[in-house]
Amino acid sequence: MRYELYYWPSIQGRGEFIRLALEEAGADYVDVARGREEDGLGMPALMHFLEGTDAVHPPFAPPFLRAGEQVIGQTANILLFLGPRLGLVPDDEPSRLWAHQLQLTISDLLTEIHDSHHPIASCLYYEDQKPEALRRAADLLERRVPKFLRYFERVAERNPQRDTHLVGSALTYVDLSMFQMIEGLRYAFPRAMARIETAYPRLIALHGRVRARRRIAAYLASERRLRFNEQGIFRRYPELDA
Amino acid sequence: MRYELYYWPSIQGRGEFIRLALEEAGADYVDVARGREEDGLGMPALMHFLEGTDAVHPPFAPPFLRAGEQVIGQTANILLFLGPRLGLVPDDEPSRLWAHQLQLTISDLLTEIHDSHHPIASCLYYEDQKPEALRRAADLLERRVPKFLRYFERVAERNPQRDTHLVGSALTYVDLSMFQMIEGLRYAFPRAMARIETAYPRLIALHGRVRARRRIAAYLASERRLRFNEQGIFRRYPELDA
Repeated sequence: MRYELYYWPSIQGRGEFIRLALEEAGADYVDVARGREEDGLGMPALMHFLEGTDAVHPPFAPPFLRAGEQVIGQTANILLFLGPRLGLVPDDEPSRLWAHQLQLTISDLLTEIHDSHHPIASCLYYEDQKPEALRRAADLLERRVPKFLRYFERVAERNPQRDTHLVGSALTYVDLSMFQMIEGLRYAFPRAMARIETAYPRLIALHGRVRARRRIAAYLASERRLRFNEQGIFRRYPELDA
Repeated sequence: MRYELYYWPSIQGRGEFIRLALEEAGADYVDVARGREEDGLGMPALMHFLEGTDAVHPPFAPPFLRAGEQVIGQTANILLFLGPRLGLVPDDEPSRLWAHQLQLTISDLLTEIHDSHHPIASCLYYEDQKPEALRRAADLLERRVPKFLRYFERVAERNPQRDTHLVGSALTYVDLSMFQMIEGLRYAFPRAMARIETAYPRLIALHGRVRARRRIAAYLASERRLRFNEQGIFRRYPELDA
């Protein structure tokens, strides 16, 4: 099965959580919007699903994944689908629901991080909502990020199988997503993270272990891994990193 | 199976999406935090899971559902679990993922609606972020709500089985959630909804049919259905309903 990932071609964004899972599993996939138009790829292929009139299951927004005849949207839903197929989640239903629950909680934090630079409207520039962003980012870093990270640290701590993973005894897509979350927070808020991250030793150790995995390390060093930038979800605006 | 629903006892909030599914199915359930402390219910029973130290799968926030030994959090994840058990989703995996994808998109809109009165911080009062709320609510009503409702109207329109439902040929939990979304939007933004809702005839008709279902009608008329109020997600602040 060759998977087709559809996501904006110039940012890590939500698509990165899918890319990491596909890369760790060594899956056969194509990052459609980053391909060439003459090969039937590129942005037109992505926009076809968003604006076309023939998709029976139209996605609301990228990322979405095409797997044979199925088109699946919503980041956490894509991972719910891919997890068992890529061997990145335990077999039993309770573990899969638990992994998905954690992934949805990561999605919630991600939305709050996005809204810290866009608290008023996605369609406005950051510069048009900067005073509001300053207020929201202060709350994000003072209360919300610590609340979420404390939660996930506790999840690892209570994992009855191994506190080196968030779910079960082996690597799951949730661990990969937590790696990306730590990576993004360090990029966007280096000062705040330097101050708070020592309170979450299990998450930081997990981040390091994921980073060192053979396929992940190769991916991160490759051109397939886009750099963080100020069009994505994790943005480095020093004034927000109080 | 007696289900235990844990949610804040004084608001519809996210818990209402679960209540509607349980009610439509005639399921045996207890709304734990609304019960009496002397029966082992009430707020202490809810806080036990949030603040206790023994839950192996601690939820980040309500709602969460206890089903035997399992404790399941995140609204859409609870419905993913309950859907097949309550007969509120088709049997095949592609339909279930599609229903879940739509539910996650409803969750996204719900978060945007919440943030329209709390654009800066959940921990602050509305009054402390009112100028920002005025800006965000204007964008919500002008761009975001129409974008989401247009999307769901299209989903119904393209449903190859029946455009009277969002998924498949029979009622699903997604239809119940769309009922609640329309109901909440009409409560919070009566002027805006009166202006725009005629553009979404399938969703409005769906809302009416759900409302008239025997068990739903009985539930809505009962004391089990909390009233909308200004502590919930859908709040009627006339100044935001431009």
